[in-house]
Amino acid sequence: MVQIAVMGYGVVGSGVVEVFYKNRESIQRRAGCEMEIKRILDLREFPGSPYAEKFTKNFEDILQDDDIRVVVEVMGGVHPAFEFVQQCLQRGKSVATSNKELVATKGAELLKTAAENNVNFLFEASVGGGIPILRPLSQCLAANEIMEIDGILNGTTNYILTKMIKEQVSFADALQQAQQLGYAERDPSADIEGADACRKVCILASLAFGKHVYPDSVYTEGITKISLDDVAYAADMDCVIKLIGRVQKLSDSRITATVYPAFISHDSQLATVDDVFNAVLVRGDAIGDVVFYGKGAGKLPTASAVVADVIDCVKHIGTRKLISWEDCHDPDYVVDYKTDTVSMYVCMQTQDRPALQEAVKQQFGVVRTLSRPNAPGDAFAFATGAMPEAQIDQKLSAVSSLGTVTSKIRILSDI
Amino acid sequence: MVQIAVMGYGVVGSGVVEVFYKNRESIQRRAGCEMEIKRILDLREFPGSPYAEKFTKNFEDILQDDDIRVVVEVMGGVHPAFEFVQQCLQRGKSVATSNKELVATKGAELLKTAAENNVNFLFEASVGGGIPILRPLSQCLAANEIMEIDGILNGTTNYILTKMIKEQVSFADALQQAQQLGYAERDPSADIEGADACRKVCILASLAFGKHVYPDSVYTEGITKISLDDVAYAADMDCVIKLIGRVQKLSDSRITATVYPAFISHDSQLATVDDVFNAVLVRGDAIGDVVFYGKGAGKLPTASAVVADVIDCVKHIGTRKLISWEDCHDPDYVVDYKTDTVSMYVCMQTQDRPALQEAVKQQFGVVRTLSRPNAPGDAFAFATGAMPEAQIDQKLSAVSSLGTVTSKIRILSDI
Repeated sequence: MVQIAVMGYGVVGSGVVEVFYKNRESIQRRAGCEMEIKRILDLREFPGSPYAEKFTKNFEDILQDDDIRVVVEVMGGVHPAFEFVQQCLQRGKSVATSNKELVATKGAELLKTAAENNVNFLFEASVGGGIPILRPLSQCLAANEIMEIDGILNGTTNYILTKMIKEQVSFADALQQAQQLGYAERDPSADIEGADACRKVCILASLAFGKHVYPDSVYTEGITKISLDDVAYAADMDCVIKLIGRVQKLSDSRITATVYPAFISHDSQLATVDDVFNAVLVRGDAIGDVVFYGKGAGKLPTASAVVADVIDCVKHIGTRKLISWEDCHDPDYVVDYKTDTVSMYVCMQTQDRPALQEAVKQQFGVVRTLSRPNAPGDAFAFATGAMPEAQIDQKLSAVSSLGTVTSKIRILSDI
Repeated sequence: MVQIAVMGYGVVGSGVVEVFYKNRESIQRRAGCEMEIKRILDLREFPGSPYAEKFTKNFEDILQDDDIRVVVEVMGGVHPAFEFVQQCLQRGKSVATSNKELVATKGAELLKTAAENNVNFLFEASVGGGIPILRPLSQCLAANEIMEIDGILNGTTNYILTKMIKEQVSFADALQQAQQLGYAERDPSADIEGADACRKVCILASLAFGKHVYPDSVYTEGITKISLDDVAYAADMDCVIKLIGRVQKLSDSRITATVYPAFISHDSQLATVDDVFNAVLVRGDAIGDVVFYGKGAGKLPTASAVVADVIDCVKHIGTRKLISWEDCHDPDYVVDYKTDTVSMYVCMQTQDRPALQEAVKQQFGVVRTLSRPNAPGDAFAFATGAMPEAQIDQKLSAVSSLGTVTSKIRILSDI
């Protein structure tokens, strides 16, 4: 009998308990032994709960209990989750978590502690919610050199963008609808500003390329400035706008890591990923493109991924799963996004369109002029060719006397 | 240093050797030890090959060599692959294979032999080629009760159907194009008659539900009878025609397992899977729908999946991966597909359309009448409501005096 503890009884934590008892028989069969949830840590009271006798407010009840071999951390946030997880690992307990903020900021340190104590630290649910990503990435694609990962990693922003694209709902209204449906939180900034997707990019990059990528080295741009005009110009290029988290391996073994809204072609495998669905495209040198697709969040999907990690922890008590990466504080490991080669959609407001158009042509050479229904006469929208982003900035500032840039969105034509 | 042997140096076998040497460094890092390919078994001569000294025509050179701990079987066919694999397992060697026919017909027996000899028998490449399916199914989704799996499991037929749907190319012409491009073999029957998809359904069903499903218990229908008229009627229902392999768990713990062309909605996550791409949708009780998508075949994708299994075999020398299922000879475990509840598209040829239409209405109640451009006056196409398939047959035979059924395709509205 392996005893388990669950730290945090919020949405995911209560889901973990629910999934465990619902499918306990098959879970135990797959783990190869009997399992029980002994303790649930939460500071709140749950008087009517069928698990009332398991609740504790004291972390020491879990830490000091050597019968508890596997701990689920679903409290969220970095503190005190980090300290609790660190102590559990040091005490010889394996830990499964869905806490992307914890993994993105403290992953290398916790993986090191896990290795030193011959226990496991697993976090499948931290990237795709219920979608299996990390294990396929590290195991099934083990024979590949990963070249690139592109993902729609945040359901809230994808829901908002889908509403904007399919129903011409404005950003503000779409956000409100998402909040009413429970897809967005009352303070939606972590989603719409891209921080959530950024954390997931950090985890994917760390796992795929073996060195920890911290959130502050990932250029991150949210979707708050996207307008219905941008959506219409994208349509003129047969594109949709999606918030894309992207990591790429460069030839000098440095990487790019970014999160930003981008034009992607209608034909892309990611273009049809709508509403709250997430998808991750992995490009390997042998396998080509593989896509993993599903609901990236939600109580039961996320909980089921956590429970799958618990099963793996139980199966591997005394042995180690080789999911790991090194710490890395080289400031040059993630290259400056301004050196990336991209194409750019640019929309400008101008008093003198012929002059601006001529100046843009002189700077950029041939550009593709974009149109949309009911565009005002003072708007000029175009798509540049591919060049380093810093160069695009230079050329745009060279024409700034003739107009003001009102929108600028990168175009990803290779996914 | 772990020594490996490769049996069969055809498309996949040569790809395995290529991927191994190309990415050897990272493969060894992931396996945690040094590895070398010691022997390659093939009856043909490869005089100019850089691996010339590794070739042998004698299986005993591999079997008797106890330095060889892991064997790759990529010969194809059941015999002598089965005997070779069986002997390798008995001798204490782990085996990785991409041979779906072998796994579908002999999987339970080989898994038993592997367990008895404390070695591993892995076959990730046998279902999705390079797409990771089996490992996510058995590990990541371990906390779920799998309810259903639906897959586009054959690239050749999906290529042909895509040509028919998108470019109105006839079946015969699309097949010819597929052959010219190397997507279909000179004898394409295993693909177009559904046998290949059937084998993959057997493996998926066996792994998901724990009991071996043999090919002869899976109702299998290919795509050879699909016409452009059917494609047009499907469009009238906002559907596309795809060859779907499907397994479902019933409430009495029996299962359904089928392969047939079906109408699926444009909105389905499988509807946009085109050309030679494959996709597998897994429906779990907690996770909801998850889709795995990629190129299901091809030299390097398949080879990279085999090499990933080799890495897993090397990492688990002396221990067992819990991928397994029981043998099952209960003739009632897979239910008769005629008892499944389905809707059906039916196209009939008739001399008396008003009378037929009236008779169909009497038999089926309300049906949806379908139309297509340039349909001849003697054609009557409709979609039935959902009922056991045997009942549809009865009702159709009751109207058979008024017309002849020229087409009948199932409608899957739940994926």
